Amino acid sequence: MSETTGLAAPAAEPAAPDFSGWTCPAPLRDQPRVVMGHGGGGALSSELVEHIFAPAFGGELLAGLSDSAALTLGGTRLAFSTDSFVVRPLFFPGGSIGDLAVNGTVNDLAMSGARAAYLSCGFILEEGVEVTLVSRVAEALGAAARTAGVEVATGDTKVVEAGRGDGIYLNTAGIGLIPEGVDIRPQRAVPGDVVIVSGEIGVHGVAVMSVRDGLEFGVEVESDCAALGGLVEAMLAVTPDLHVLRDPTRGGLAAALNEIAVAARAGVVLEEKAVPVPPPVANACAVLGLDPMYVANEGKLVAFVPREHAEAVLAAMREHPLGAQAAVIGECVEAHPGMVVARTGLGGTRVVDLPVGEQLPRIC
Amino acid sequence: MSETTGLAAPAAEPAAPDFSGWTCPAPLRDQPRVVMGHGGGGALSSELVEHIFAPAFGGELLAGLSDSAALTLGGTRLAFSTDSFVVRPLFFPGGSIGDLAVNGTVNDLAMSGARAAYLSCGFILEEGVEVTLVSRVAEALGAAARTAGVEVATGDTKVVEAGRGDGIYLNTAGIGLIPEGVDIRPQRAVPGDVVIVSGEIGVHGVAVMSVRDGLEFGVEVESDCAALGGLVEAMLAVTPDLHVLRDPTRGGLAAALNEIAVAARAGVVLEEKAVPVPPPVANACAVLGLDPMYVANEGKLVAFVPREHAEAVLAAMREHPLGAQAAVIGECVEAHPGMVVARTGLGGTRVVDLPVGEQLPRIC
Repeated sequence: MSETTGLAAPAAEPAAPDFSGWTCPAPLRDQPRVVMGHGGGGALSSELVEHIFAPAFGGELLAGLSDSAALTLGGTRLAFSTDSFVVRPLFFPGGSIGDLAVNGTVNDLAMSGARAAYLSCGFILEEGVEVTLVSRVAEALGAAARTAGVEVATGDTKVVEAGRGDGIYLNTAGIGLIPEGVDIRPQRAVPGDVVIVSGEIGVHGVAVMSVRDGLEFGVEVESDCAALGGLVEAMLAVTPDLHVLRDPTRGGLAAALNEIAVAARAGVVLEEKAVPVPPPVANACAVLGLDPMYVANEGKLVAFVPREHAEAVLAAMREHPLGAQAAVIGECVEAHPGMVVARTGLGGTRVVDLPVGEQLPRIC
Repeated sequence: MSETTGLAAPAAEPAAPDFSGWTCPAPLRDQPRVVMGHGGGGALSSELVEHIFAPAFGGELLAGLSDSAALTLGGTRLAFSTDSFVVRPLFFPGGSIGDLAVNGTVNDLAMSGARAAYLSCGFILEEGVEVTLVSRVAEALGAAARTAGVEVATGDTKVVEAGRGDGIYLNTAGIGLIPEGVDIRPQRAVPGDVVIVSGEIGVHGVAVMSVRDGLEFGVEVESDCAALGGLVEAMLAVTPDLHVLRDPTRGGLAAALNEIAVAARAGVVLEEKAVPVPPPVANACAVLGLDPMYVANEGKLVAFVPREHAEAVLAAMREHPLGAQAAVIGECVEAHPGMVVARTGLGGTRVVDLPVGEQLPRIC
């Protein structure tokens, strides 16, 4: 046991309860119409991909469940990813839809170990929106791109009638090089891996909620929205053999860990009290009846790291400004494959399930 | 003069009128709010790019005015492009938003000479839309991707509240390899180039208009929506030295030619009667008061080809199913740089200006 990192030897399984009869979540009852939860990054989103998009599109890459696709083109290994952004409001404490559009896609690429090189950018504007607002969003996007070291290479603009949009929707896609020897994807989590989170969770979601129409509340947090390419490079400098990286956006840490557990057919055990939740987030969640484990982040990552490299990777993360609060929060286990279990502060355990939808829609 | 191709020796400039005092279009008066025309692919769209997006994003590639960006990553030359799709209705004679989403981006890549390899796909769904409709669109998209030989590698889904969208909006981005020795971009048009169109124009726009709410009319045309990668390969097999390719989508042939003329600082002279307009399109345009030159196409291209290769390129196009109706429609000239002039059937000339907005919004 290390005093500084909290790393333990492979732990004994939690004594109770018996999960032997448990299987991966079954498909939810078919919904005849799209509900907000289909965009929430939880079980309903997964169902759309598994039951509609993947069969319709065919192909292997989409079924990989990664934040980005790893592909080879002209002998070059590339990561390729896309996200649309419908956050409301467009500006929030610590960021804007323009920052999200850059950092969301840059981070999806970083989760393959790739440094983002080029972005595309598609605007869907609602008729009547002020041109100065479009300009402010574009400037935020450009500034975020320069900070992340990525170039906006190509773009497109469409306009829809007033009442058919909501000001500004954005899509970005991004490409970046995957370094030699790097193979980071959810399927690579194996029992024994140490689970590390790069910092305090729940900050982005609470920051956006705090300024949402009809929900305004005073809170001293700003979104953690940031580009994680540099942090990932620092981690890869320790070892190219990181197993899994994931940025816990929609659906929060709970959704990210569940997706990894399912993809890898492995279990995850968390130490609940080791998960860093800043007091303002804890307080806001207590008031709103939310669980911080399910609240979105936009500048954090969770890593599954081989035990022998974990201490060095954690130290490298803590050296980086975006990983100063990094912490070991659990481990990957053989038991209960596909399931995430948290050891509570009271000595018990609870299942941390995949959320069905999301606690608050349009958080990114 | 060739009987079969209609290729002429470099023509004498049209006698009248005097365009000597003419300059490239000045910025339109600032619009305080976004209007539909900002998404029309005409002057207002260009203004958004030139005055807002390009300065905000910085970078060289976006300012290139190409349908796709040509870039080098890991020693590999790639084309990268994006389009959002907001067509109304979602299904129309000859295609759907799913077909457009594939072919629009595949064609943008083809206009750099690149064969599309991978697509990303972002859905913005409106709460309440039927899941079966999402499924039909996804299946159309998948089928179009297989036809075009491109793989959907990565995707994203967001949902917005009922009344904040219009069923389904789509974005695709695509990447493809640019073959060795190929450098196709609007700036490369030079006086003497022969201008070739790959087939009959105006079909997509008229097909969509014919089923638009409040505008339904009987017409026997189906959208020309198709992937042009194979046609471009057939042209490149004749010579890698094609100067410019452009798919005349929003804003039609007129917008495409104007953009090329401005980018290359060259003039374009069209033989109006050489431009192939099918009778149903001509009739529909006459009824609706539209000019076919400004109506959108989704399976056509216009090429600027060095005169010495023009006849062979035209012959190769006519061998291909998507180029069977290919025709020489004009040439690139030194006079009136930045301007497109048509020789009318009556022996006169007229300026074919860049449209300000679009004749009918949400055509793609």
